[in-house]
Amino acid sequence: MLDQIHWLAAVTVLGVLEQAYFFLQVIYARRLFGISPPKISGPPEFERIFRAQVNSSEYFPIFLALLWQAGLFFHQGLAAALGLLYLYARYCYFMGYKASSSERLAPIYFSAGVLWILIAVSALGILHFFLSHYVGLNVLQFLTA
Amino acid sequence: MLDQIHWLAAVTVLGVLEQAYFFLQVIYARRLFGISPPKISGPPEFERIFRAQVNSSEYFPIFLALLWQAGLFFHQGLAAALGLLYLYARYCYFMGYKASSSERLAPIYFSAGVLWILIAVSALGILHFFLSHYVGLNVLQFLTA
Amino acid sequence: MLDQIHWLAAVTVLGVLEQAYFFLQVIYARRLFGISPPKISGPPEFERIFRAQVNSSEYFPIFLALLWQAGLFFHQGLAAALGLLYLYARYCYFMGYKASSSERLAPIYFSAGVLWILIAVSALGILHFFLSHYVGLNVLQFLTA
Repeated sequence: MLDQIHWLAAVTVLGVLEQAYFFLQVIYARRLFGISPPKISGPPEFERIFRAQVNSSEYFPIFLALLWQAGLFFHQGLAAALGLLYLYARYCYFMGYKASSSERLAPIYFSAGVLWILIAVSALGILHFFLSHYVGLNVLQFLTA
Repeated sequence: MLDQIHWLAAVTVLGVLEQAYFFLQVIYARRLFGISPPKISGPPEFERIFRAQVNSSEYFPIFLALLWQAGLFFHQGLAAALGLLYLYARYCYFMGYKASSSERLAPIYFSAGVLWILIAVSALGILHFFLSHYVGLNVLQFLTA
Repeated sequence: MLDQIHWLAAVTVLGVLEQAYFFLQVIYARRLFGISPPKISGPPEFERIFRAQVNSSEYFPIFLALLWQAGLFFHQGLAAALGLLYLYARYCYFMGYKASSSERLAPIYFSAGVLWILIAVSALGILHFFLSHYVGLNVLQFLTA
């Protein structure tokens, strides 16, 4: 069974490390700008880093859910590759947002694009399973026949 | 193996699409009320939509965790049906909260009820597995004997 | 298959119950301090409880992701034991933060330590799988030979 998920597991742990990096950035920013918890407002420089982390945290479970469905129902290697692309886009988003609000836009659109591909790939894989399981229609076999 | 999780996977992807819809609603509200990131405060109309999205995001991993435990350890079809009910309640919650703070209450109580049922179903399924695995007691067999 | 995940499932449901407890604490605090949604600011006593819940929610998917990778690729029992330790540390964190900002520090460092151990254990387990799967190198066999 692990054979079918080891790449997904590796990308998952890498994603956790990225989240840890974002959390550390907020801790450094809190020290730099002197904003102690539970406060979450401050100069725009701080609020941008803080919001970049919150946004990345909100998307993390969505990313993991799609990574695993795409990997289990479509293709593990493709899902893992898209996963790495997403983690790279998230890193660019965080660094861009840290610099200025407008620099977050290009990477956030890119990361959203990767997620939509993961949604499409997951949906196709699950649909293929339903068709072959309930209707007995194997689309791949049908196309190559 | 996919046989035991395809309904759970389908509901998971549907849940991701719902989350995407909520994120888009916040983006539209930011444009409508002219509130650029990283700002998160504004008129109550904006803050209600924003909080509805944040609350839904916070509950999303909890929902997925319960959906999958209930589906794996109790019954996949029942878990998926409860999952659809939860996603419907979340939609009503979002739309209610968008209209007024008080209109979020009925659907949030309903969605919490569905989650408690998922907790109960998960716990029963896991307990049943522990009893039959470690004590050798098959409760279902015992009841129907 | 359930044989390899029943302890992980049990700790997952326990973690959900803990999250539910934190959400209820915020609801009680909202009533006590008269802070109706969508407002999230108020006296420090309220904001500490609110932030404790938000922080715990942000870490919950990270915790689950690590718990399951560590359990699947390293050792289920060890992962579940570390999981229980994490949930205990989170409880201490929440109660400490409720009392004062400084009392959150010791348990948050402890919970972070547990997460780093889960990261290390997950990474080792996945690395071991990659080595034996692709290189044909079984490290455990090699060490005990």
